[in-house]
Amino acid sequence: MANNPSGEDSLIARYFKPLATDPGAFGLVDDAAVLSSSGDDIVVTTDAVVEGVHYLADDPPETIARKALRVNLSDLAAKGALPAGFVLTLALRSKEDAWLRPFADSLGEDAKTFACPLLGGDTVSTPGPQMISITAFGRVPRGRMIGRTGARPGDRILVTGTIGDAALGLDVLKGGAVAAALASNSAAREALISRYRVPQPRNVLARAVRDHATAAMDVSDGLAGDLTKLCAASGVSASVDVTSVPLSAAAAGLLARNVVGVEALLAGGDDYEVLCTVPPAQSDALIAAGRAMGVAVTAIGTIVDGHEQPRFLDGQGQELLLTRLSYSHF
Amino acid sequence: MANNPSGEDSLIARYFKPLATDPGAFGLVDDAAVLSSSGDDIVVTTDAVVEGVHYLADDPPETIARKALRVNLSDLAAKGALPAGFVLTLALRSKEDAWLRPFADSLGEDAKTFACPLLGGDTVSTPGPQMISITAFGRVPRGRMIGRTGARPGDRILVTGTIGDAALGLDVLKGGAVAAALASNSAAREALISRYRVPQPRNVLARAVRDHATAAMDVSDGLAGDLTKLCAASGVSASVDVTSVPLSAAAAGLLARNVVGVEALLAGGDDYEVLCTVPPAQSDALIAAGRAMGVAVTAIGTIVDGHEQPRFLDGQGQELLLTRLSYSHF
Repeated sequence: MANNPSGEDSLIARYFKPLATDPGAFGLVDDAAVLSSSGDDIVVTTDAVVEGVHYLADDPPETIARKALRVNLSDLAAKGALPAGFVLTLALRSKEDAWLRPFADSLGEDAKTFACPLLGGDTVSTPGPQMISITAFGRVPRGRMIGRTGARPGDRILVTGTIGDAALGLDVLKGGAVAAALASNSAAREALISRYRVPQPRNVLARAVRDHATAAMDVSDGLAGDLTKLCAASGVSASVDVTSVPLSAAAAGLLARNVVGVEALLAGGDDYEVLCTVPPAQSDALIAAGRAMGVAVTAIGTIVDGHEQPRFLDGQGQELLLTRLSYSHF
Repeated sequence: MANNPSGEDSLIARYFKPLATDPGAFGLVDDAAVLSSSGDDIVVTTDAVVEGVHYLADDPPETIARKALRVNLSDLAAKGALPAGFVLTLALRSKEDAWLRPFADSLGEDAKTFACPLLGGDTVSTPGPQMISITAFGRVPRGRMIGRTGARPGDRILVTGTIGDAALGLDVLKGGAVAAALASNSAAREALISRYRVPQPRNVLARAVRDHATAAMDVSDGLAGDLTKLCAASGVSASVDVTSVPLSAAAAGLLARNVVGVEALLAGGDDYEVLCTVPPAQSDALIAAGRAMGVAVTAIGTIVDGHEQPRFLDGQGQELLLTRLSYSHF
């Protein structure tokens, strides 16, 4: 009787055991992991990325790994939670070392950087597109998770980083109008592609979000649509000054040259920035916390009474009529 | 600006919101859920099922839903944990009501039956085979999860239910030798198919497992291979009396007629029974607990010193040479 571990077991041992640094992961030899809580609430979030839908088939395994984990870390940041670990489901067509090795190494680097160790996982084969599904865990003091329902009229609307770059990066990868407009500017092209492939989750701001925000979520489907969801959950409306929405130099240039319209930026998706609402007296504190951490935090509008959809106003105070709010995968 | 929720949002609201009965799920309006812990340890397990790999493309949506959740519930049972909830990632080709409605309804019925509410999820589109990835949570008193590493020489090896039926059911569905041998016995065919499609996780025994077992896991890849893993994790070996392994009447009949060999049963997989090791003085208590709950618990062997692979002995005490131990999906 030969010692013949199944393919899945040896794959896990070879590639993923080094990532399982938490004692609750039992070195991945068990079916299950333990999250000790010490009385904290455990925040749970789950997001999957699918080849051809959330990343491109020829994206490097390094960036696919980072994106898969970071879209989940971004949710934890917006909830005010500190990362505690994650479980991974990997649906693979093949188990080629040339793909798995850089994938696992990059995932491990991010797990270390963000203090979010691998707790367990499942590896399955699929004849179809590859898929990485991650469930991530964070900790907040009991009852302190920041939800979507707490926004109140008068709150300022703040957003981190810049908006729209990832959607522009996807257009570059697909060889669209943005690619043509930036044909002679490889630095700008690379910067936008990087924003699409490797989100920059704002976990360094999680404590400040928890201390100051009345409601928060991460911007994943498009700022306009995500703000609409937050307002609906809170039973409020909003007024956004579109000229205040923070743009990168590349995005601002493309907008000025009419290569893209503002709608493409507001509804583009894949930003993975934090969108939150903060009482006016506390907005400076959150902006200052961002500055201290090297993350721009920008006020873009105000929560108002009502149940209408948020209004997006141009420089003349005229309402923009957006024909779409979000990127939808269906 | 039309109120135009994304396809994913309306899909979740329509089908899955009724399953989110836990207050920590926030009615699925947030990106994240909260698991309150009250100082318990949270046990985390994740298992995915893929169309064409773990279930057949023409399996009914009702049984696919139940299998996806139950393979995870089975892990919680074997860890001695009481279900606390689950998150769901659904990779769909289409969002046809004819498939999603019975899927969601059956998932909801099982969530209620097993007291394991939906906490959150992600729905993504895929052009490839459908996949359902579930991460399930359970609670145990701090430090009391039953692992794989605690088996000690002298412990009895116990297993719940019967072994090998699901593998026989898969053979029936594929029109193999079992299907031919049972051509005139539709009741037996249906019973075996049901064992493949709808596992019977032993969550009613979780407390008894926690009270008595030194090590435990669920049998998902085949009894022989899974016992081998448990012994390796515990640094022990084992001796199994193959004539003691509990078989259904259908499996025993097929074995007696030489339609299948014992190896097909011991290495078949998809059993989702609990395999555990128990000090001799406590094995009667666990067997009695099973009887009280209507679940057969059977002693099949003994943990012994050593690092060899477990030995499987026939009725004459001769070692069986198994050429495979598990069903491997790779």
